[in-house]
Amino acid sequence: MNISILSIGDEILSGDTVNTNSAWISQKITRLGFNVVNQVTCQDNKKEIISSIKFLLSFSPDYIIMTGGLGPTQDDITRKVIFDFFNVQEIFDEEYWQELVLKYKMLDKDVLDSNRSQAVIPSIGEVLPNPFGSARGYSFKKNTTKFFILPGVPSEMKGIMNETILLELKNIVIKPLLKKLIRTTGYAESVLAYKIKKITDLDHGCKIGYYPSVYGVDIRISSTSSSLLEKLFIGIQNILGDICFSHTKTPIEHLIVKKLSLMNKTISIAESCTGGLLGHRITNIPMASKVFNGGLITYSNKSKSRLLGIPKDLIDDHGAVSEIVAGKMSEEVRRRFETDYGISITGIAGPGGGTKEKPVGTVFIGISDNNSTKVSRYMFGKDREKNKLKTSQAAFDMLRLSI
Amino acid sequence: MNISILSIGDEILSGDTVNTNSAWISQKITRLGFNVVNQVTCQDNKKEIISSIKFLLSFSPDYIIMTGGLGPTQDDITRKVIFDFFNVQEIFDEEYWQELVLKYKMLDKDVLDSNRSQAVIPSIGEVLPNPFGSARGYSFKKNTTKFFILPGVPSEMKGIMNETILLELKNIVIKPLLKKLIRTTGYAESVLAYKIKKITDLDHGCKIGYYPSVYGVDIRISSTSSSLLEKLFIGIQNILGDICFSHTKTPIEHLIVKKLSLMNKTISIAESCTGGLLGHRITNIPMASKVFNGGLITYSNKSKSRLLGIPKDLIDDHGAVSEIVAGKMSEEVRRRFETDYGISITGIAGPGGGTKEKPVGTVFIGISDNNSTKVSRYMFGKDREKNKLKTSQAAFDMLRLSI
Repeated sequence: MNISILSIGDEILSGDTVNTNSAWISQKITRLGFNVVNQVTCQDNKKEIISSIKFLLSFSPDYIIMTGGLGPTQDDITRKVIFDFFNVQEIFDEEYWQELVLKYKMLDKDVLDSNRSQAVIPSIGEVLPNPFGSARGYSFKKNTTKFFILPGVPSEMKGIMNETILLELKNIVIKPLLKKLIRTTGYAESVLAYKIKKITDLDHGCKIGYYPSVYGVDIRISSTSSSLLEKLFIGIQNILGDICFSHTKTPIEHLIVKKLSLMNKTISIAESCTGGLLGHRITNIPMASKVFNGGLITYSNKSKSRLLGIPKDLIDDHGAVSEIVAGKMSEEVRRRFETDYGISITGIAGPGGGTKEKPVGTVFIGISDNNSTKVSRYMFGKDREKNKLKTSQAAFDMLRLSI
Repeated sequence: MNISILSIGDEILSGDTVNTNSAWISQKITRLGFNVVNQVTCQDNKKEIISSIKFLLSFSPDYIIMTGGLGPTQDDITRKVIFDFFNVQEIFDEEYWQELVLKYKMLDKDVLDSNRSQAVIPSIGEVLPNPFGSARGYSFKKNTTKFFILPGVPSEMKGIMNETILLELKNIVIKPLLKKLIRTTGYAESVLAYKIKKITDLDHGCKIGYYPSVYGVDIRISSTSSSLLEKLFIGIQNILGDICFSHTKTPIEHLIVKKLSLMNKTISIAESCTGGLLGHRITNIPMASKVFNGGLITYSNKSKSRLLGIPKDLIDDHGAVSEIVAGKMSEEVRRRFETDYGISITGIAGPGGGTKEKPVGTVFIGISDNNSTKVSRYMFGKDREKNKLKTSQAAFDMLRLSI
């Protein structure tokens, strides 16, 4: 089954926006076993949109998914062009309009006349509900090709895809490509590849991909045969063991919050160089309040002494970025917030502040509980933002292996 | 002058690779005044490549830039297809081959027979040197359209673009497209459009686009006439005034850290529902340590009382998410960290915890300085992560307008 994707939007053609929509859609539908034959991006004008649709139709795909151009402002003309192309009339959906008016009222916002365009529906075809916005999608059929027309705002496009289109497509495919995910952190792609080489060198009949990011390396394997896939998966898993932290896309902080919650344990954190990132990531998880009491961002040395009670002498003698200070921070924050675990981070995020002994990227992470305090030293790169992200991931990984 | 971009590669169509090449090329050439009319991605096979080229040629662009499919592995058939399409012969460039052999030797790598394909050049057309790899690019002319054919590896594509193609294109353009950016936060796209309607309805001769994100709405205007662009820019700016926080892509936290640093002022923060996000964003900026002393993440009510000194009665009487608690939090954190400004955030990020009076999305943000304390109430949506991001953006915006 073949699918084409058409993105409409000058912001993509000018390069101001990277076309992540096409990648997201492609990934989702490829996993269902569909074949994306082409992706086209065109300008938000009638001639270009029509030519692009005709070009895509020349391949007779089973589906064409279009995104972009359904917003309320004047640069969004897609709907009109599409309705003309499919030769359907505009109908004003009074009921939906009243819903919109109410929704805006509840958000304490004025609904404007320009929003009325979002209540317009076609006389034939389907309307696709938008769970995260006011611009709904449409669906039409032309010969053997079914069209889905979606807004370009990523969250809204994804909402409609997840709640309508992917459910429909899931029911169609007979032999989907099966995939497994092995998520790791703390090891380079080449090291992981070397570790599992003796298995991957065999004729395993699967496809293997390595996807490194700042959070670690994801290993993705795929095959249409579930037995071959399972065999390779178990083989890799047996070698990597604890290095793998998950087999789903769920972020590591989610796994930790869930586990702590089941254990009925609480944590608190004392962050220096990450500046609040660890707390931010924990509190992205809805049930965080069950396990996370709070934290201290002790960015200045003075705040480390005054608010966290780290003796000034200790900082003077060993430096704020040191094993002993990290350990003490984790103990003190645990005591102050009365939690089961205390986590601490102190490091040099860069670009300045490095020394020969402790270059930029040096980080100490401490974890203390009722029995003991552990501190590990890490060395990350020179990029400040990546450094913070890698540090937070390492802290979560250390915590994962401690609880 | 019109340009089309053709990307070849199954990894883009499967969504495993986001097409950043097209965005990068588009941004570079749009800045030179060229107009990108379309971007197409197709599979690495003859039929698809030829159909896509013919489709792009139907718009008679001045240039077509193709990327991908020039590597040595077996799935790279682009070169053969292109040579056939332009009806040119393959010539083996013995001199370049010797260079390659030497290069590989110096890198202690074996040169493989499959690498020989990279020494193949066309009998007519140009060869474009690759400063960062062994696959060179090609250039051909078809009627009025000039083709550039480049490898898909981003660093190599960029190398050839920077060292050959962009230099050539720079010499051609007379009238580049000029752009201006107006960044706002706190107002919906439709409200902004309504506010500036009386100007944008006039014949201003510019292009206007609205780009909403969780951080606010960017308004981008462009024109080849600097006087028309300037006129529209001033008109919009006069109406929007303080609503606009920047004319560059620099994030708002950067502007704040810079301004506070120039003023020699310091801040501290007390975060509840954002859980550390505000601190994280501030500390992404290298000079943060000059202005940011630290913060408290008082996620539990107990920590608000114990560590931030908010009277338990106050929380019991008014709720932790209340104007009075937000105000007190900003004062107390300011006092504890001895800073010029104290910023506080308390709200209901969701999905649970809402009431009729204070539904999910209710947030209070407080700012206190030596003279006074201000608190504002906000209402964001139901999505927890977006809620946190919007809250942090609103806090920065409130701080921007206070300093």
